[in-house]
Amino acid sequence: MKTHLAGSDAASIRFRGRDLVEELIGKHGFTEVFYLLAVGRMPEPGQTRVLDACLVTLMDHGWTPTSMIARLAYDSAPSQVQVGIAAGLLAVGDVFAGTMDGCARLLAEGIAKEDKAAWCQEVVQAHRAAKKPMPGFGHPFHKPDDPRPPRLFRVAQEAGMKGDYIALLQQLGRTVDAVYGRHLTINATGALAALLLEIGMPLAIMRGVSVVSRSAGLTAHIAEEQQNPTARHIWKLVEEEIPYEDPPA
Amino acid sequence: MKTHLAGSDAASIRFRGRDLVEELIGKHGFTEVFYLLAVGRMPEPGQTRVLDACLVTLMDHGWTPTSMIARLAYDSAPSQVQVGIAAGLLAVGDVFAGTMDGCARLLAEGIAKEDKAAWCQEVVQAHRAAKKPMPGFGHPFHKPDDPRPPRLFRVAQEAGMKGDYIALLQQLGRTVDAVYGRHLTINATGALAALLLEIGMPLAIMRGVSVVSRSAGLTAHIAEEQQNPTARHIWKLVEEEIPYEDPPA
Amino acid sequence: MKTHLAGSDAASIRFRGRDLVEELIGKHGFTEVFYLLAVGRMPEPGQTRVLDACLVTLMDHGWTPTSMIARLAYDSAPSQVQVGIAAGLLAVGDVFAGTMDGCARLLAEGIAKEDKAAWCQEVVQAHRAAKKPMPGFGHPFHKPDDPRPPRLFRVAQEAGMKGDYIALLQQLGRTVDAVYGRHLTINATGALAALLLEIGMPLAIMRGVSVVSRSAGLTAHIAEEQQNPTARHIWKLVEEEIPYEDPPA
Amino acid sequence: MKTHLAGSDAASIRFRGRDLVEELIGKHGFTEVFYLLAVGRMPEPGQTRVLDACLVTLMDHGWTPTSMIARLAYDSAPSQVQVGIAAGLLAVGDVFAGTMDGCARLLAEGIAKEDKAAWCQEVVQAHRAAKKPMPGFGHPFHKPDDPRPPRLFRVAQEAGMKGDYIALLQQLGRTVDAVYGRHLTINATGALAALLLEIGMPLAIMRGVSVVSRSAGLTAHIAEEQQNPTARHIWKLVEEEIPYEDPPA
Repeated sequence: MKTHLAGSDAASIRFRGRDLVEELIGKHGFTEVFYLLAVGRMPEPGQTRVLDACLVTLMDHGWTPTSMIARLAYDSAPSQVQVGIAAGLLAVGDVFAGTMDGCARLLAEGIAKEDKAAWCQEVVQAHRAAKKPMPGFGHPFHKPDDPRPPRLFRVAQEAGMKGDYIALLQQLGRTVDAVYGRHLTINATGALAALLLEIGMPLAIMRGVSVVSRSAGLTAHIAEEQQNPTARHIWKLVEEEIPYEDPPA
Repeated sequence: MKTHLAGSDAASIRFRGRDLVEELIGKHGFTEVFYLLAVGRMPEPGQTRVLDACLVTLMDHGWTPTSMIARLAYDSAPSQVQVGIAAGLLAVGDVFAGTMDGCARLLAEGIAKEDKAAWCQEVVQAHRAAKKPMPGFGHPFHKPDDPRPPRLFRVAQEAGMKGDYIALLQQLGRTVDAVYGRHLTINATGALAALLLEIGMPLAIMRGVSVVSRSAGLTAHIAEEQQNPTARHIWKLVEEEIPYEDPPA
Repeated sequence: MKTHLAGSDAASIRFRGRDLVEELIGKHGFTEVFYLLAVGRMPEPGQTRVLDACLVTLMDHGWTPTSMIARLAYDSAPSQVQVGIAAGLLAVGDVFAGTMDGCARLLAEGIAKEDKAAWCQEVVQAHRAAKKPMPGFGHPFHKPDDPRPPRLFRVAQEAGMKGDYIALLQQLGRTVDAVYGRHLTINATGALAALLLEIGMPLAIMRGVSVVSRSAGLTAHIAEEQQNPTARHIWKLVEEEIPYEDPPA
Repeated sequence: MKTHLAGSDAASIRFRGRDLVEELIGKHGFTEVFYLLAVGRMPEPGQTRVLDACLVTLMDHGWTPTSMIARLAYDSAPSQVQVGIAAGLLAVGDVFAGTMDGCARLLAEGIAKEDKAAWCQEVVQAHRAAKKPMPGFGHPFHKPDDPRPPRLFRVAQEAGMKGDYIALLQQLGRTVDAVYGRHLTINATGALAALLLEIGMPLAIMRGVSVVSRSAGLTAHIAEEQQNPTARHIWKLVEEEIPYEDPPA
C-alpha cells in the first residue's frame, strides 16, 4: 500500500512525483497545484482558467447557512479560526453549495448516449412525472435567468474546452422549457457541473471544489466578523423572534 | 449593521463592490478573489504571486493528523465529502499546520522597533531562558535546513515585495544561531509568516490561509482514498498495535 | 414561531414546561431529562431503564474511526477538548455507529402490517434478491451470535416494554435464517433499533442517541490519550506502513 | 502500548475490565458507565447523583450559538443528524458552555493552600487589579442570584460529598463581594466546577462533561427543528437585518 500524493525526506518534499521547492513553489499557482494533487496531472492552461472560474463563482453567497454557522462558531472559539471555518463547511451538503453532484451525475450519464435528444426527453419527463426538481435548473431568486451560467460557458469556450457537456446541458435546458411549457434557467450549479466535467474533475470529489472555494469565503466572513461582529446580534434577533413558550398541556 | 462581502439581487451578484459576473469570473483567479474577499482590496500581481506560493507550500504534507482524520471520516460518511474535509481541517490547530500565528506575532511586534538587533537579542534570550521553542525555527526532520524558506524568500523578492519582514526574520535567525551556539533552520512556518505579513494578510486570519490550502490537499486525499482505500487498513493496524487489556487491578 | 425546549428569565430556567431548578436538578437523572427534552414527555421508569441500556451499549467500541479521529484531533488542538470529541462524532455516520436507522425503518414499516409472516418473507427475499445486507443482521466478528441482543431484550422485558418491535425483529430473524439457509445473528444495531422503538424514540433522531452515547466514550478516549498518548505513535505507524512513492510514469 | 477502555473478542465485550453484557447493560445507567469509562472506576451512588445533576444543568439553554449552529447545519445535511450535533458542539468553547475549566483551575489551586482566606484575598485582588472577570462569578441575566448554584450545592450535600471545593467557592464568593464592594453571584459554571471536582472528575476532561450533556440538548433541538423548522426563518431574518452594501470607496 502506497500513497502517491506527498512525501518528504530530509532535503526535499515531493507532490505527485514533482519536487515542491524546485518545480512548484513560485512556478505554479494554487489552482494548478490543487488540480495536480486532486486529479493527478498538471492541468492545461485552459483547464486552470476554467477551474479558477468555478472556484471564484462558488466562493461566497453572502448570508447562507455556511456563513452564519462560521461566524457563530468563530465567536465561540475565537482563538481557533479553523473551527469556525470547518463548522461552516459542514453545511456544504446535500441542500446548499454541495449540490453540483446531481447535475453532474445526469450529464455524465447522458454524454454516453447516442441519441441525446431522446435521452433529454426521457430524463426531463421522468423528473416531471416524479415531481422531482431537475438538478441544475431553476433559481428562487435569479429570474428569468441566473447571470452566471452564460459567463461561465463563455469562459470555457474561450479557454478552448471541447464543450460537449455544456452543449448537453443546454440541450437539456431547451427540453426542460419545452416539456414544462415555461422557461427554467440553467443555474450556477448546473453550469459548474458541466464545466468541472469539461476539465476532467472526477464526479466523486466535485463537492471538494465547493469546499475549497467556500473555505476562502468563510475566511473572509471571519475577517469581517473580527472587524464588525454580528454573532451576538444574530443571537439576540433569534431569541426575540422565536421565544420560548411552555409546551401546550 | 451591514456586510460588505457579498450580496445579490435578481440580476447580479456583488463581491466587495464588484460585479461577480462582469468583473471577476474569467478575469481574476481564485487566489486574487480570495485576497479581495479576505483583505478587502484586489491584490497587486506580486502579492498574488506570493499568496500563491504560500498556498502551494501548505497544501499537503502527506500523512499528517489532517489527512488521517479526513480519510477515516470520509470512510464513515462516504456520501458526504465535505464531512471528511471539515473533520480533517479541525486538526489545523495550535500544534500543526495552523502555527504561523506565533512567528507572525513576533515579527509584527519587532517590525515597529527602532533597534532591531537589540529586540532580536531580547526575544531570543527570553525564549531561551524560558526554554520555549522559538516560533518559526527548527524542524524535526529537515536538517540542517528546511528547503522551503530560501525558495519562498526568492519568490517574494522576485515579486517585488519590500522585504522588511523577511529581513527581520533572517536577522532573528542569525541571532538564534549566535545565542543558541548552533544552527537552527528557519522553517516553512516562519517563512510563510513573513511572506503573509509582506502582502498585508491580517494576522488574525492568517490561519485561514492554512485552512484554505489544506482543504485542497484533503480533497486530494479523499480522491486517493476513493481509488486506493487505506482507512480500514489503518484501523486494523491500530487495533493490532495498541490492543485492549483489562486495567491493572 | 416558538421553541418549547428551554428558556429563562432572571429568576428561573424552564425545560419543556418544567422548572429546571425546582423540578429537575437532583430529582431526575440525565437519561430521564434527555428523554424529556428529545421526546417531549418525562419517561416511565421502564423507558428510562431501556434508554440507559441502549446508551450504555453504544458508549464505546475501543478502536473505531470515531476514537482514532478523536484522539488525532485532540492531539492537534489539546486546549479544545470539544474539537476532538466533535471531530470523532462526525464519523457516527451511515457506515458505523449511526446505523440503527435502517433496521428501525424496517421495523416501523412492518409493525403496521396485518400479516407479519408474509411481510417478513417479502422483506428478506427482496434483500436477498438485491444482494443487499439485511439491516440489523450479521456481525463480522461476533459469531455465531452477538452477545448484546439477548441481554437487551431481557432488559426490555424486565422493564415492562410491550415487546412488539422485539418480537417482530425476532420473527424477521427466524425468516432470515430460513431464507438464507444459515444462521445470521441479530446484531446490536438491530436490537437497539427495536428497543428505541419500544420506548417511542422517534426514528428521525435515533442517530442522536448514538451521538450522545458515543460522546461519553470519546471523552474517555481523550482522558486516556492525556495519560497515555497514542496519536503520534499512530501517525508513525501509518507513515511507515503506507509510504509515499512517486506515481508510476 | 495498550488501551484499557474497551475491547472485544467473538463472545464478549469489555469496558475497563468489566463484561459489558454481564456486568453493565441493565445493571448500571448511562451516568455511571460514563464515569467508569472516563475516570476509571465505578462511581459511588452519591457521585452518580452529583454527576447527573451536573449533566442535567448543562443540557440546554434554549437559543445559544450551539443550538443555532446545530439547527442550521441540520437543515443543510438533513440525512446526517450527527453533522448538526457535531457542528453545534464545536461551539462548546472558551466563551460559552465550555468554561468550567477556569473556575476549576482556581479551585484546584486553592484547595492545596493552608491559609485559604489569604489565598482568596490574593486571587480576587489580582483579578480585580488586572480587570479580569473572576471565573465562576457574575451573570448577565440572572440577578441578583443565579438560581442553580444553591440547588446544586444542596444536591452535593445530600449526596454526601465532602464539600471542600464548595466551601472554598463560597469563601471565594464572600471575598469577591467584600473586595468588589457589591454582590456578584456564584454562577452555574462556578458551581459545576466545584461539584465536578468533588466527584473527582479530572480537570483536563471537565469540558467533556459539557459536551456530553449538550449533545443531548442538541438532539432535542434537531427533533424540534424536524417538527417546526426555524433555520430558513433565521436565515431570512439575518439577511433582512444585516444587508449587503458595497464597501465605502
